[in-house]
Amino acid sequence: MNTVQPRRPSGFSEYLPGEQIEFNRLLTIIRSTYEKYGFSPLDTPDLELTEVLLAKGGGETEQQVYSFTREGSDTSLTMRYDLTVPLARYVAEHQSDLVFPFSRYHIGKVHRAERAQAGRAREFYQCDVDTIGSTSPAVDAQFPAVINEIFEQFGFGEFVVRMNNRQILNGFFEGIGAAAFSEQILRTIDKMEKISHDTLLELLAGIGLEQQQIEKIIAFTSLTGSNDEHISQLRNLEVSSDLYHEGIDRLEKVVSALRDMQVPEHRFAIDLKIARGLDYYTGIVYETVLVDYPQVGSVCSGGRYDNLASYYTSMKLPGVGISIGLTRLFYAMRELGVIKTDQKSPASVLVLPIDEAHQTAGFGVATELRVAGINTLLNTEYGKFGDRMRYADRLGVKHVVVIGDDEAAQQVVTLKTMETGSSEQLSVAGLVARLA
Amino acid sequence: MNTVQPRRPSGFSEYLPGEQIEFNRLLTIIRSTYEKYGFSPLDTPDLELTEVLLAKGGGETEQQVYSFTREGSDTSLTMRYDLTVPLARYVAEHQSDLVFPFSRYHIGKVHRAERAQAGRAREFYQCDVDTIGSTSPAVDAQFPAVINEIFEQFGFGEFVVRMNNRQILNGFFEGIGAAAFSEQILRTIDKMEKISHDTLLELLAGIGLEQQQIEKIIAFTSLTGSNDEHISQLRNLEVSSDLYHEGIDRLEKVVSALRDMQVPEHRFAIDLKIARGLDYYTGIVYETVLVDYPQVGSVCSGGRYDNLASYYTSMKLPGVGISIGLTRLFYAMRELGVIKTDQKSPASVLVLPIDEAHQTAGFGVATELRVAGINTLLNTEYGKFGDRMRYADRLGVKHVVVIGDDEAAQQVVTLKTMETGSSEQLSVAGLVARLA
Repeated sequence: MNTVQPRRPSGFSEYLPGEQIEFNRLLTIIRSTYEKYGFSPLDTPDLELTEVLLAKGGGETEQQVYSFTREGSDTSLTMRYDLTVPLARYVAEHQSDLVFPFSRYHIGKVHRAERAQAGRAREFYQCDVDTIGSTSPAVDAQFPAVINEIFEQFGFGEFVVRMNNRQILNGFFEGIGAAAFSEQILRTIDKMEKISHDTLLELLAGIGLEQQQIEKIIAFTSLTGSNDEHISQLRNLEVSSDLYHEGIDRLEKVVSALRDMQVPEHRFAIDLKIARGLDYYTGIVYETVLVDYPQVGSVCSGGRYDNLASYYTSMKLPGVGISIGLTRLFYAMRELGVIKTDQKSPASVLVLPIDEAHQTAGFGVATELRVAGINTLLNTEYGKFGDRMRYADRLGVKHVVVIGDDEAAQQVVTLKTMETGSSEQLSVAGLVARLA
Repeated sequence: MNTVQPRRPSGFSEYLPGEQIEFNRLLTIIRSTYEKYGFSPLDTPDLELTEVLLAKGGGETEQQVYSFTREGSDTSLTMRYDLTVPLARYVAEHQSDLVFPFSRYHIGKVHRAERAQAGRAREFYQCDVDTIGSTSPAVDAQFPAVINEIFEQFGFGEFVVRMNNRQILNGFFEGIGAAAFSEQILRTIDKMEKISHDTLLELLAGIGLEQQQIEKIIAFTSLTGSNDEHISQLRNLEVSSDLYHEGIDRLEKVVSALRDMQVPEHRFAIDLKIARGLDYYTGIVYETVLVDYPQVGSVCSGGRYDNLASYYTSMKLPGVGISIGLTRLFYAMRELGVIKTDQKSPASVLVLPIDEAHQTAGFGVATELRVAGINTLLNTEYGKFGDRMRYADRLGVKHVVVIGDDEAAQQVVTLKTMETGSSEQLSVAGLVARLA
């Protein structure tokens, strides 16, 4: 038969089993932590009506979507390119059936037809979590707490959630008479750490700011010190803006709540350089950096917004949330050699009856182990023993249970531990107790 | 602002939180059972190259896919319409990196542009599980064992995995001189239970079979009795076909293995009417029916095939597997009122500080509960107490923990149990112990 070369479209990755197991381990940490904080799971269609999904229109986004109209249909469909717009559509569509504050998480793939390059996929997982319909600063504080629990379990070393409040930034710009330029200043601050000081000065001058305003902005975003020192320095600045002072009050409440929730002080840091590019944030903003791998950039970002779904409903829906771009994070950690992919089976044990005569005993042992909650693989390929042990080794299972004539005669099984190469004989009950 | 009506494309469903929680509970049962049997997780792109995905070509499938070429691109992409073809492509593409037998599961959405009708979605979940690269009958037997564990946990009442072996059917047709008509007879048998006896006779005659052959086929597919009775009746028939007798031997081994794996006898039944329509099955075939809801049809089907990936590789890849169409099953069970969707939050507890003065205590209690592994939602919307209790009620949480002046003075919390309406005061440690 003529065969077609099996291959994927460019920019569409998939994992080998060892990678997938590790990826799923991270997904499970995210999912279970989101649920521990009471966020409900949500799932929306992969395809949306183009007219609805792109209601906002314009911009880079529209050029990067997978949109199409099927032959014989007059409906244009688009694959979702993020999970925020589908959330807005969902909340607006189902608002009468939802209970507010509505806390949901959504883990799913999104698609963007970006220029393909290393580490930049056209299909990737987003892990979003948001609370809609609350303006409480205590709700803002839950997100760094969630990040703290997740990254502690990830085991990628130390990390810091850097926080700022758009109210403080916008209030400050108001105070120095630069309110009209807020958006452009925010976008420039967002690039601050990636550009030289001279470029920064040029960009700020290019916006149309006066020399004095530029100096104030640079001094302001360069404040350093502990969280408490940040708060007191901010309070000591004479800024004539209600928004500014409201912003400080809120940020202080968030800091205090994080302490109440036992989030270690070194895991969150007020940083006035954090601005976030997106224009829809209106309150607190977060970015998370891995202390040992700063080159990876922010691994979890988000913030508060005043109005989630203005394109779909006149109901005002304030909210706050964060997102983990797991595909990108996984790629970076894999490249850095931080992620291990030796375990290629979810089974920790492989049960090996020596031949068909011992198959019944093998089934019995595998069943006992599974009943005890132990993931167990059974192998009934009766080839050479050496080949079968190599199979176990390549799969990365921790233990092999061998059942042959000797074992049958003595009513035991032989437990081989792959790492040490050691063997011991145990009763089935003893085996279950040992591995449980 | 002008708003766009928030809505979805026809045939694309999504769940409210209570439904999603229940759907995910079923997904978790499937996933954890697949892993308990040592199947590795797998995920493939939502989009494949059209040329690769439709290598087989022809048929109904091609008319039902979502295919498109983006503007400015010359690559035609297609959304996957099942998980079998992506598995074939994956195994062929990565064969040198995989360890065989390769046991994998794949839970994911697939898309088919079918005529939309009640319960028939254009986007739905498949939950596939297969072992590739083994011809062992012991491997065949693992699948009814997996189904048994999953449906036991689902709690949809009793169920039976009906089994047959294509070798027995094809061998029998060979024995009565009807081998040339095998495929058409199989497809007719597959419809047997949905059509009248007269229609059945007509269809069989229409194939070109002789009266005597038709009578033999009807007698054969009408055999009844226990599994052992089936085996002995099959053996007693004088059928001159090696394939037939090989098929009986294999089926008997599967029955024996299922007993060894402690699958209750009433959960699997040899049934010679089970044929499965698809032409690529070559060995054992399975269908699963819910005893109390036979109208739902088969809720989990599958079987053995000789060659998974002949369109992509010359390497022969025999395999066996099953699939649960969870979206369809969930829809049917929901319609039948079997699925309850009262719990709209993954949290079992809602912590309610009465006002901001008790927020710190609230954070502390919520943190203690979460550390103990209890999914906990915190509410800091300081409105009327009645409204807040209604919020708890609408979410379907089991317990509410209230913290106010009285509680603070006595260093306790009040635990309200929603179902009974009862209240009691407990220390925080006592609360954790109670709810853990």
